Amino acid sequence: QSAYEQGLDRNPANYVPLSPLSYLERSACVYPNRTSVIHGARRYTWGQTYERCRRLASALVQRGVGRGDTVAVMLPNVPAMVDAHFGIPMTGAVLNTLNTRLDAEAIAFMLTHGEAKVLITDPEFAPTVRAALDLLEGPKPLVIDALDDEFPGKDRLGEIEYEDFLASGDPDYAWELPRDEWDAIALNYTSGTTGNPKGVVYHHRGAYLNAASNIISWGMPQHAVYLWTLPMFHCNGWCFPWTMAANAGVNVCLRKVDPALIYELIRSHHVTHMCGAPIVYGLLINAPDGLRAGIEHSVAGLIAGAAPPAAIIEGAEKIGFDITHVYGLTETYGPASVCAKHPEWNDLPIDRRAERNGRQGVRHHMQEALTVMDPQTMQAVPADGETMGELMFRGNIVMKGYLKNEKATREAFSGGWFHTGDLGVMQPDGYVKIKDRSKDIIISGGENISSLEVEEVLYRHPAVLTAAVVARPDEKWGEVPAAYIEIKDGSNVTAEDIVEHCRAHLARYKVPRHIEFCVLPKTSTGKIQKFALRQQAKSASAIG
Amino acid sequence: QSAYEQGLDRNPANYVPLSPLSYLERSACVYPNRTSVIHGARRYTWGQTYERCRRLASALVQRGVGRGDTVAVMLPNVPAMVDAHFGIPMTGAVLNTLNTRLDAEAIAFMLTHGEAKVLITDPEFAPTVRAALDLLEGPKPLVIDALDDEFPGKDRLGEIEYEDFLASGDPDYAWELPRDEWDAIALNYTSGTTGNPKGVVYHHRGAYLNAASNIISWGMPQHAVYLWTLPMFHCNGWCFPWTMAANAGVNVCLRKVDPALIYELIRSHHVTHMCGAPIVYGLLINAPDGLRAGIEHSVAGLIAGAAPPAAIIEGAEKIGFDITHVYGLTETYGPASVCAKHPEWNDLPIDRRAERNGRQGVRHHMQEALTVMDPQTMQAVPADGETMGELMFRGNIVMKGYLKNEKATREAFSGGWFHTGDLGVMQPDGYVKIKDRSKDIIISGGENISSLEVEEVLYRHPAVLTAAVVARPDEKWGEVPAAYIEIKDGSNVTAEDIVEHCRAHLARYKVPRHIEFCVLPKTSTGKIQKFALRQQAKSASAIG
Ligand SMILES: Nc1ncnc2c1ncn2[C@@H]1O[C@H](COP(=O)(O)OP(=O)(O)OP(=O)(O)O)[C@@H](O)[C@H]1O
Ligand SMILES: Nc1ncnc2c1ncn2[C@@H]1O[C@H](COP(=O)(O)OP(=O)(O)OP(=O)(O)O)[C@@H](O)[C@H]1O
Ligand SMILES: [Mg+2]
Ligand SMILES: [Mg+2]
Repeated sequence: QSAYEQGLDRNPANYVPLSPLSYLERSACVYPNRTSVIHGARRYTWGQTYERCRRLASALVQRGVGRGDTVAVMLPNVPAMVDAHFGIPMTGAVLNTLNTRLDAEAIAFMLTHGEAKVLITDPEFAPTVRAALDLLEGPKPLVIDALDDEFPGKDRLGEIEYEDFLASGDPDYAWELPRDEWDAIALNYTSGTTGNPKGVVYHHRGAYLNAASNIISWGMPQHAVYLWTLPMFHCNGWCFPWTMAANAGVNVCLRKVDPALIYELIRSHHVTHMCGAPIVYGLLINAPDGLRAGIEHSVAGLIAGAAPPAAIIEGAEKIGFDITHVYGLTETYGPASVCAKHPEWNDLPIDRRAERNGRQGVRHHMQEALTVMDPQTMQAVPADGETMGELMFRGNIVMKGYLKNEKATREAFSGGWFHTGDLGVMQPDGYVKIKDRSKDIIISGGENISSLEVEEVLYRHPAVLTAAVVARPDEKWGEVPAAYIEIKDGSNVTAEDIVEHCRAHLARYKVPRHIEFCVLPKTSTGKIQKFALRQQAKSASAIG
Repeated sequence: QSAYEQGLDRNPANYVPLSPLSYLERSACVYPNRTSVIHGARRYTWGQTYERCRRLASALVQRGVGRGDTVAVMLPNVPAMVDAHFGIPMTGAVLNTLNTRLDAEAIAFMLTHGEAKVLITDPEFAPTVRAALDLLEGPKPLVIDALDDEFPGKDRLGEIEYEDFLASGDPDYAWELPRDEWDAIALNYTSGTTGNPKGVVYHHRGAYLNAASNIISWGMPQHAVYLWTLPMFHCNGWCFPWTMAANAGVNVCLRKVDPALIYELIRSHHVTHMCGAPIVYGLLINAPDGLRAGIEHSVAGLIAGAAPPAAIIEGAEKIGFDITHVYGLTETYGPASVCAKHPEWNDLPIDRRAERNGRQGVRHHMQEALTVMDPQTMQAVPADGETMGELMFRGNIVMKGYLKNEKATREAFSGGWFHTGDLGVMQPDGYVKIKDRSKDIIISGGENISSLEVEEVLYRHPAVLTAAVVARPDEKWGEVPAAYIEIKDGSNVTAEDIVEHCRAHLARYKVPRHIEFCVLPKTSTGKIQKFALRQQAKSASAIG
């Protein structure tokens, strides 16, 4: 044993669990009067946000919430959603952000699987949440309604309103850091490609590091003004609620992606940064020019969630966005790679520059590795830009695993790397480029759709014999689900019937946009040859 | 046990020890052709620096260096010093940067105490190092001479020259991350206030976090051009060798602080960032105006190491520096607090702004806490700007402890906080301000001097009966050592005799600048009342 291993242990003075809660406390101490959150006419400072989070934590603890419990939220990008990212983990509990676009069945599944003790919900989603609560078989969570002046509806489901709940909490609540930086901080369900959604668990360490990595990889200055065009329920808004606390910036809230409102907020609050899927930039590009009047500054924009077409990158740059392309998954806390720009690229013609920027790039500063490998041999493919393999991540910005799903966790991490299910190549300069996908999902307007879920609904229609769903390129949504269906002998069904059936059982965005009745291509053993359908639908051209 | 604690363990895909070595690898992969190091006519790219570091690691391993060994370096700010920050830890060994201004005895002590197996040394320090090696009683380290075209001397001490040593290493050496992020990465001796220097041990985790914290707290952009006006041997250059690897910037080397050369380098390489003690900025302010001709851009400058007089902050701003004041100690990896600026301060008159900026401030982003406490009761003092207490740090940017010195380690961390030995107040806005010092050191031109060491040398003079050394304000150096001496009856000695004696036994900068023969103030039990001498010398006015 060397001298360096004696008498040099951890102690409370030199070791503290890494947690993004520390960022909030720092900003509240150093910049108590700087604006933290803007929402319509509401304004909070970092001092106030910290107080609200402590109240929230205290009120939750009074209701019995503690370490290892789950608190779910069904919220748009409102101040309560910012609070939730701190107030809930302050109790040792885990924040489960629900995708507000999901239907009651999916929500009910998540509340049950995640064992949510408390649910904070917005009136806009009351019908869905009411139906979801009705579906619950076990004990129901405590429901807190977060009313919002920016939304007309006041439909309530729970016993207490969010502001009243906060009022019952102690503004000086003595919260504690997690016992261990490996403790869970968030639970994010991702569309299961093999059945039910999987619960991706994040830890405090990863949230802390990715929040910092966002600042470093994007070169984000302190006090940036960040517009919430990205839903905070997506991978915790790519960790930006924590990033904005770290850099004492401004969260400009936004309930829905509406170009007129977005431009108005950019103008009036001098927004400097935003994130979004390609569809968001598509909407902004195609909005009437007049909406941009008076905006003189450039907005830094991260783009991810689906492959950004060159036209979107070019278009966004033309209207004054400084676009950086990132890539990642729910399992990697959102983007964990960045298409790091080289100053030399500025000299390229815009189309060649867009091509360079269209790549998924290299690992984030605080992610350890991103590579492309043959998933069988776990050997890296040559960096020739041609040999296909699976993209794999490794490092501290990778989930703990899937909740209550050891098998899926083991598979995801097999061979010591996280398997993304994205297929692509390694280019000679070490940048990865996605070309296709091995997992069965469709990404439409930045939202994931599990082909399997849609297929299961199709099979429930009495006329359907066999069904397969694949991604089909779409000008606006990037990809849309396309269904290939074999109907039972003697059945008489129309595409409209199928769509209607799907509407009844699926969230809107999951309903197939294209339906084809045909004989499905099969292997000799009767397995559907999805690859052939994907070729037919030109899936890869949408993904890559 | 909650569901969050089952089947969600660490594995190679989701957990990697935090180490700044990862930053180097990333920059070498992403920016292989960007400049990493400039030194005179020499230029390296990040690809080349990475290769040099791997060669260094490989060559060291071939010589038997491994985990827990110490490799010492006696180097100015030259490319080999940058390499050392990566190549040495790549082997699992610990980098011990020696203060090049020390004398042979101090160096010999450190080589012995740190058990250095290898020493890399620059010809400028050959006389000192030769004498130090002669003093060693145990086995001598392998000595490697790092010759440098920017220095005329070629005085060699060792068996092998640095570049030849590198040539013997493998450029593709498969180095590994540390087994544990708590593993030691660096050893920095700090002037012992109670006798021998203490060996401050850093770990990979802290080096990684502080390197990132430098970027975030300073708002340092990628590819910054950093001029090495701060010695890399001081707290590993405040972790900036690792920071520059993280942001793929340029290290502009500098053997010595020479205003003409500094301005020339700022001009020719468009330097954007630099660090230094107040004396460095003092030299730049007082240099002839003509030296600044042609420099149009502002340089961001961190200032620390001693309290910066308002005149220095103002003066530096007037000649185009954008000054940020930071504070810390060897024990906190260099600066671990920052006088975070508020935009509102820009509207203040320059003297009031300088006063605001003259405070030691608030914790760095990635440090957990900085406070002012009564060291007896460990209660925070009121934030009234008046009540004195001791500044204390807590968090991940605090050393592992002192090497082979459990007692000092325990004392330093008593009560769960790191005791800085600096005295000051907490202002109402949560910013700390240093007013005095409880530890017996003098900080002259950014270099620490242990009063005790000087006193011990004084006592060795045959005429000295009692001696006490305290800090005295000095226009140029901030503080200088002042000696108060009682001479033996019948002795006949002059101030010049004392100075001559000190010159023979102390590094230059430690020699008292002021000598007073007097009867020393003592307590009833005969203990010297240093506080009275410090009052007499106006020490606090230099420190605070
Ligand atoms: N920049 C990108 N380029 C191409 N595909 C992307 C990009 N970013 C994300 N994707 C696709 O999205 C998948 C990740 O979807 P997932 O839902 O897990 O995470 P997310 O997109 O980060 O989060 P969410 O969709 O919930 O916002 C990736 O595996 C990939 O197929
Ligand atoms: N900004 C500052 N203002 C006042 N005093 C400072 C400041 N920075 C450092 N000091 C003094 O220097 C002491 C730390 O000296 P130490 O040598 O341990 O660390 P360092 O100054 O960061 O490193 P080095 O002097 O080796 O560069 C502090 O305890 C404090 O007394
Ligand atoms: Mg997605
Ligand atoms: Mg110092």
